[in-house]
Amino acid sequence: MGATLADIAAHARVSEATVSRVLNERPGVAQSKRQAVLTALDVLGYERPPRLRRRAGRPVGLVLPELTNPVFPAFAQALGPNFSRRGFTPLVGVQSEGGLDEDEYIDIFVESGATGIVFISGRHADLNLPTTRYQELRDLGLPLAFVNGYRSDVDAPFFSADDASAMDLAVRHLVAMGHRSIGLANGPESFVPAQRKAQGFRDAIHNSLGAEVPVRIEAALYSDDGGTSAARALIADGCTGIVCASDMIAVGVLAEARRRGLNVPGDLSVVGFDDSAIARHSWPPLTTVRQPVAAMSISIADAFVGEINGVPASRSEYFFQPELVVRDSTGPLSRLDRL
Amino acid sequence: MGATLADIAAHARVSEATVSRVLNERPGVAQSKRQAVLTALDVLGYERPPRLRRRAGRPVGLVLPELTNPVFPAFAQALGPNFSRRGFTPLVGVQSEGGLDEDEYIDIFVESGATGIVFISGRHADLNLPTTRYQELRDLGLPLAFVNGYRSDVDAPFFSADDASAMDLAVRHLVAMGHRSIGLANGPESFVPAQRKAQGFRDAIHNSLGAEVPVRIEAALYSDDGGTSAARALIADGCTGIVCASDMIAVGVLAEARRRGLNVPGDLSVVGFDDSAIARHSWPPLTTVRQPVAAMSISIADAFVGEINGVPASRSEYFFQPELVVRDSTGPLSRLDRL
Repeated sequence: MGATLADIAAHARVSEATVSRVLNERPGVAQSKRQAVLTALDVLGYERPPRLRRRAGRPVGLVLPELTNPVFPAFAQALGPNFSRRGFTPLVGVQSEGGLDEDEYIDIFVESGATGIVFISGRHADLNLPTTRYQELRDLGLPLAFVNGYRSDVDAPFFSADDASAMDLAVRHLVAMGHRSIGLANGPESFVPAQRKAQGFRDAIHNSLGAEVPVRIEAALYSDDGGTSAARALIADGCTGIVCASDMIAVGVLAEARRRGLNVPGDLSVVGFDDSAIARHSWPPLTTVRQPVAAMSISIADAFVGEINGVPASRSEYFFQPELVVRDSTGPLSRLDRL
Repeated sequence: MGATLADIAAHARVSEATVSRVLNERPGVAQSKRQAVLTALDVLGYERPPRLRRRAGRPVGLVLPELTNPVFPAFAQALGPNFSRRGFTPLVGVQSEGGLDEDEYIDIFVESGATGIVFISGRHADLNLPTTRYQELRDLGLPLAFVNGYRSDVDAPFFSADDASAMDLAVRHLVAMGHRSIGLANGPESFVPAQRKAQGFRDAIHNSLGAEVPVRIEAALYSDDGGTSAARALIADGCTGIVCASDMIAVGVLAEARRRGLNVPGDLSVVGFDDSAIARHSWPPLTTVRQPVAAMSISIADAFVGEINGVPASRSEYFFQPELVVRDSTGPLSRLDRL
């Protein structure tokens, strides 16, 4: 198969000797070159030798921080078909306290021959953590993609919901219904999305209500307990509207309002973020800012497959516009004397 | 390393030549023998050669049907630490419509060297589907474990919540509060857990209310939409209490009750199944029968690691006792004339 070998070598940008070594399953070929040869076989329509044959798509690692917040299952569910349509199969690693962390999943994905790794709200989102591991992976030539977070020193595409725009939508909605005392129940301060939400919230309050209005922000964990503790501080501070950095936080705010006998939205308006499954099923159903998970998932899969096929994605960050979904947790105050 | 090679060969039950081939990364060794040699190295406390070194645990495949029902993320989250404590790392495959199915995940787990596969509510749960693929995997010597479903022709341990016991708990609870017209919003009839719930529900109604009482069961999809359609039929049929085969179904029943202006529990009592995250956050918070996900996850990991280490688990089914969690969606009827 003389001409064939040359075709494959040209497409994979390796020597014919390397192609031959891979096809004969000889050792001593770097994983990246081996992968390039196999990809060339697939792309050029040649059948792989039996032991290198792959009936399923090629594996892509997907690292999630947890599964309790339903937005992470939603990303996994949305990325699945987008990757499989393009010939890849996402394998999901779920971090857990007392269980596995990002580093261990990186090891196992590299060892089991993943073609690349997508990180959703991973360590890259926390500016307190180093990026050295990501740089090592890039030095190995492994394609990476990062969701919701940004680190300028990592050579990879980043995909984020536009947090500032989300805060603007939420604040304008509350201001339009007459609220003047609005607080933000935010995530931990070292996280990129939380920093962006804080800045966006500050700007939105100042743009809508004037530069002299004090800005109330409570940092909390991204959980219902976090929402409960933030709600206590913000309600004590006189807020009649609370914007939340996630629907899970918002559900904790709703629970605290119930505990105090506050009517939502009559006494307190609450806006979530994500529009995950919990938003539709909470009581009252949650007004929230939808994170465009579907659009983000398409772009992530596109960019990723481009990387594999030698069309590197832009090394910048892609921002996705959120939209306001109005349900029943926001409204004008029923007791006007509280305004 | 003469003696050493013999030790490893003895433990792995392969020839010394095979051990040597694996350590020198030569081709021509079956994946199962290669894995046996690497396991022997690990067990005997020898360090693997650099390129065969594994910092993370060995991979275990975990196939989930979907992630929208929060009980599946809950299983993934609970299995994580249980496997990692025992030196394994679960990689999760999520099925999706238009995306990947169980067969494709099986392929990819086998190809990427998974040490075994755990199926949660997989094709094994649907009696309309064949078991041939599972039998092929067992012929390859791959350890398997199955959750919530049972097939007598597959040589593997099965782990199930006790569905009959769950129905008994739910029906007794409603009867104790005065309900006499109780219906079951069940899953699809071909599923093992749905068949067991139907039988358990029938027995519970007859035991609590007498053999002459008609038994109302509606089969529906395991989703909120399924719950809504089952609720329409059961409410039209005069039911004042509805037992549901999952919390997702129950949330659909709650939505239908709201749509009709029915008060829960004043006009209608609703019992879920699973005690997934949605049960705590629904309105009203859902009385439900808790699937013992934590206990099941410990047993699954134990049995699985036993299989790997040559201590096969019993080929029977392990049943786990559910418990009733009473919240606010059940109570006596407020209008006694409706009884």
